[in-house]
Amino acid sequence: MIVVLKQGASQEQREDLIEWIKSLGLDVHLSIGKMQTVLGLIGDTASVDKELIEGLAIVESVVRITEQFKKANRKFHDDDSVFEVGNAKIGDGNFMMIAGPCSVESEEQICAIAESVKASGAQLLRGGAFKPRTSPYDFQGLHADGIELLLKAKKLTGLPIVTELMDISQLKYFDEVDVIQVGARNMQNMELLKQLGKEKKPILLKRGLANTLKELLMSAEYIMAGGNEQVILCERGIRTFETAMRNTLDIGAIPALKELSHLPVIIDPSHACGIARYVKPLTLAAAAAGADGIIVEVHNNPEKALCDGPQSLKPEQFAELVKSVEKVREAVK
Amino acid sequence: MIVVLKQGASQEQREDLIEWIKSLGLDVHLSIGKMQTVLGLIGDTASVDKELIEGLAIVESVVRITEQFKKANRKFHDDDSVFEVGNAKIGDGNFMMIAGPCSVESEEQICAIAESVKASGAQLLRGGAFKPRTSPYDFQGLHADGIELLLKAKKLTGLPIVTELMDISQLKYFDEVDVIQVGARNMQNMELLKQLGKEKKPILLKRGLANTLKELLMSAEYIMAGGNEQVILCERGIRTFETAMRNTLDIGAIPALKELSHLPVIIDPSHACGIARYVKPLTLAAAAAGADGIIVEVHNNPEKALCDGPQSLKPEQFAELVKSVEKVREAVK
Amino acid sequence: MIVVLKQGASQEQREDLIEWIKSLGLDVHLSIGKMQTVLGLIGDTASVDKELIEGLAIVESVVRITEQFKKANRKFHDDDSVFEVGNAKIGDGNFMMIAGPCSVESEEQICAIAESVKASGAQLLRGGAFKPRTSPYDFQGLHADGIELLLKAKKLTGLPIVTELMDISQLKYFDEVDVIQVGARNMQNMELLKQLGKEKKPILLKRGLANTLKELLMSAEYIMAGGNEQVILCERGIRTFETAMRNTLDIGAIPALKELSHLPVIIDPSHACGIARYVKPLTLAAAAAGADGIIVEVHNNPEKALCDGPQSLKPEQFAELVKSVEKVREAVK
Amino acid sequence: MIVVLKQGASQEQREDLIEWIKSLGLDVHLSIGKMQTVLGLIGDTASVDKELIEGLAIVESVVRITEQFKKANRKFHDDDSVFEVGNAKIGDGNFMMIAGPCSVESEEQICAIAESVKASGAQLLRGGAFKPRTSPYDFQGLHADGIELLLKAKKLTGLPIVTELMDISQLKYFDEVDVIQVGARNMQNMELLKQLGKEKKPILLKRGLANTLKELLMSAEYIMAGGNEQVILCERGIRTFETAMRNTLDIGAIPALKELSHLPVIIDPSHACGIARYVKPLTLAAAAAGADGIIVEVHNNPEKALCDGPQSLKPEQFAELVKSVEKVREAVK
Repeated sequence: MIVVLKQGASQEQREDLIEWIKSLGLDVHLSIGKMQTVLGLIGDTASVDKELIEGLAIVESVVRITEQFKKANRKFHDDDSVFEVGNAKIGDGNFMMIAGPCSVESEEQICAIAESVKASGAQLLRGGAFKPRTSPYDFQGLHADGIELLLKAKKLTGLPIVTELMDISQLKYFDEVDVIQVGARNMQNMELLKQLGKEKKPILLKRGLANTLKELLMSAEYIMAGGNEQVILCERGIRTFETAMRNTLDIGAIPALKELSHLPVIIDPSHACGIARYVKPLTLAAAAAGADGIIVEVHNNPEKALCDGPQSLKPEQFAELVKSVEKVREAVK
Repeated sequence: MIVVLKQGASQEQREDLIEWIKSLGLDVHLSIGKMQTVLGLIGDTASVDKELIEGLAIVESVVRITEQFKKANRKFHDDDSVFEVGNAKIGDGNFMMIAGPCSVESEEQICAIAESVKASGAQLLRGGAFKPRTSPYDFQGLHADGIELLLKAKKLTGLPIVTELMDISQLKYFDEVDVIQVGARNMQNMELLKQLGKEKKPILLKRGLANTLKELLMSAEYIMAGGNEQVILCERGIRTFETAMRNTLDIGAIPALKELSHLPVIIDPSHACGIARYVKPLTLAAAAAGADGIIVEVHNNPEKALCDGPQSLKPEQFAELVKSVEKVREAVK
Repeated sequence: MIVVLKQGASQEQREDLIEWIKSLGLDVHLSIGKMQTVLGLIGDTASVDKELIEGLAIVESVVRITEQFKKANRKFHDDDSVFEVGNAKIGDGNFMMIAGPCSVESEEQICAIAESVKASGAQLLRGGAFKPRTSPYDFQGLHADGIELLLKAKKLTGLPIVTELMDISQLKYFDEVDVIQVGARNMQNMELLKQLGKEKKPILLKRGLANTLKELLMSAEYIMAGGNEQVILCERGIRTFETAMRNTLDIGAIPALKELSHLPVIIDPSHACGIARYVKPLTLAAAAAGADGIIVEVHNNPEKALCDGPQSLKPEQFAELVKSVEKVREAVK
Repeated sequence: MIVVLKQGASQEQREDLIEWIKSLGLDVHLSIGKMQTVLGLIGDTASVDKELIEGLAIVESVVRITEQFKKANRKFHDDDSVFEVGNAKIGDGNFMMIAGPCSVESEEQICAIAESVKASGAQLLRGGAFKPRTSPYDFQGLHADGIELLLKAKKLTGLPIVTELMDISQLKYFDEVDVIQVGARNMQNMELLKQLGKEKKPILLKRGLANTLKELLMSAEYIMAGGNEQVILCERGIRTFETAMRNTLDIGAIPALKELSHLPVIIDPSHACGIARYVKPLTLAAAAAGADGIIVEVHNNPEKALCDGPQSLKPEQFAELVKSVEKVREAVK
């Protein structure tokens, strides 16, 4: 950590500050220049409060050099993390296709989609039971009943399931859920993250709408610090000024997260764009850029065409997508 | 709600869509132009799922004309809402000064600050007991003990208190808290909002880092739909590309929210900029632009100057701020 | 164009407005609902000033349904545009590799790079002669001399050249330049765009840092309206809150622009990320998502390693990139 | 400037780098820590290319400590800059009201508005002759004829005039213009800025839509480096995710720019929000936050109500605004 002092700082103030920093167990390296004086803080600065130091009257700016995340950090864990989900691996060269409907609606619906996506090559079934909706007047999901239906589809097909947890109080329904999803709106719900640190199963952590990659890794760190190191990072589009699509997929997040961390990285093309016909190009881009998988919305209701989600693929589109992904993965091997 | 159809839509598809819309209890007004066909949906469209219609193959775009928020909407509630907190009013021409430390640290600290800010003109005491921190390695607050200390300061000074709730499970400690704060990171924690809809006290709802004003009002609507109509809206800076300050205070949110809604609007200048010396200009700007108050950080520890929060005022700065605010309020009356 | 009237608008005001709209040569379709009255403007609304109507006292909101760009619009020009540059085509299934140094520095440098990238498969040589730098104290390019050197490299290798024009006054040096580049900072330099509408050669138009896709297409429209329909659109990263990379590559811009327009779309991975080691994943993502090419920085100065641009590839990295791109293109065919 | 080296950097590489830095005329202060090695560059680093160093293989990150702008920098010019425009001062405690129509339309129009705003207290007349429009099909202004009309209004009222220059080729019409405006879209039109560095009159420099305050100051530096130190900074709203208003007024830019620079700072409330009824609260906020003036749109055409700009005040609203501003200025003195 580098602390730049203001021009007017007196020697006494500077020495007080150095003494205080040393009391935190750190060494200080002092560099007095013509224009400014710089302190280098040496030691474990992860728990030093940057904002506290920035607030001091004699300090001009503070730069953190070492990242605050440790367990999620590539520097301290060189090999890629690999987790097992059902018979499949997330990481280790496997491109995991996670597919299913936006919301679980009925046994018939979820079972039919589960069978269909399994046949096409999906390795994990997704489906929303607890739905975070912007409006209190929109459909909020089937709740515990939705999870029951997911479990029926799991039993039928053998596909492990992933579904979103919105509040700690819902955790009691998640015993047989294979992967717990934390939605973008809850990425910094710290109490929820702490609780998930006690679980023994993978957590699929979605990046918040306007959170930096380092904040995403700090949220992963919350889970990992609690003892659960199985965190799957998910880029799902960020909020920018552009309105042509619902969000802007940050494709560069894939190489950037892979460099900063050893955790697997997947993409959610459905929420990133909100438009089904863009799901294929975004998925192929993610595969080409080195992602470890995608989580994608697939629906099946040919007879109720009016209720197509705008961002959901039809089963036959999903089947075709799986084949295209395989070709791209082969090409970039 | 306006639905624009694609050029290629057949008459049959159009009629199917119209029939389906009518089945939702709405009327449809059809307008066939040279370049496009437009449907006007007439009736209560607040619960119509815009994205569902956008996803239909024959639809080019959908425009919502009536806002989805009702209870928070100025159109259905012309008069400004006014709530009582202790002896003070929020709204009704009163500019409420809410002041106190970032975190509650000790009985001595919180009581000294409470007495000081009361003497200077604060009407409500703030102080964090449950702290949402980006890093799991940063200080997380005193939790229930912190609330105990706030209550001691309340008893001592008579100042009502506001403090942040991070999870439903903490609600048991909030019985004697006067105003419950929902932090920016939890603005779309829908389960939390629903629960607060059952409370009988004002909720101070902070705008999320990257949430639109309409999303803020939808979150207020979650609370109000549950039965608690006492929501105070708080603009606390949004995340933009600018890095000179921690966030960008959206001063225009004051007139915009006042126009869209009848709820009171306050500003958090401390978090908006993250720099104590900018708190005064931002506060005066907020007073001039018509805000109903501010929530500001004030600390007192002359002997531990190193622990100043970068965004906290000293007590004497707060006292001076109150006087300046009064003059500006007088000027813009 | 849809005009939504305020609730309080009188019949007389409404009729005045309708009469005025008709005086612009448009038809009006009136729809009176319970909650609001809506006017549908029918005819060529591209030249109607949306903001002017929004400003009227009786108007609540205005929605443009037909895009304002015409010559650039896919709706009026169904087939993909294809332009010839030297012996190569931009569009028509060809993935054009445009490569070269950030700045032209010397004859030796530009000629060596030109020969190298040609051997690896580049079809167009890039190189900056007039450099837009944020600081007046940074190197501003070799100006006209730089263009002379580019022309020498063109003569030597046969590669056509693309270089940036910053001001109309520089146009006199561009006679033998094959493709003129408009930089991101000049995307809305309207006088420059108008002038380029009189040229007879392709214009490579970069998206501004914070410009929407529709604004990019309006800038293309400026050039095309002047008579030059050879515009190549270039996504080069947008400015967002994320600071892990210099900019955020908007990969979704590829399918979105392809849908809105018939013009070819290329990507600039070097400026999008600012980090050479991310150029490959971003390029492969662009190829997988359907781009028509890339413009990439390649340097060659093994002996002056200190002057590597942070975003430039070495020649051997470029050669490898070309091969990987070919494989991905084959996979997504 | 601080250069953090990667963990793997060899001693030889480090020494090569240090030698090269010294060849630039700088001293280097070396600090070897357990986790990283840090170089402090001492001397005039304004012309050191940060990105060049960041690109070196052994460098992890580079932090610029001294700002690159010098002539615009408060550190080297402690007193506020004050410029004379006509009989008025910009800066020195004067709150300058710059008012006039969006576009100059006719002699009658501009003269009537000029007389009206002068009577209400405006000190400078604004009006667009060369108009930067997003669409080539929108009205582009009266060009040189518009400037002629502005000069007639100047002669009639004695008010000095400010109007926008879009291209160097238009400069010949600006001889009698008192203040030259550079629009937001041209903030980084470096050739234009260089040319304006040779002028002897104040330049009103608008902040670009998505440019940081430091970039704004670098653009001011371009003008000042050329010899013209009369630059007026103008915050006019930035582009964010919020769509309730056209742009987001960055009110914090006022104290931030005042701290970074000695140049005067004004606000453009009309373009910041795009809505006339928000102009007053934003103007009062700017006055309360310490701005040196505003540039505001005022129109006068009672008979052509349909052509009101959505962001323009009526003359009587402007007169009232001037009075309110005076009261706020008095209050914050």
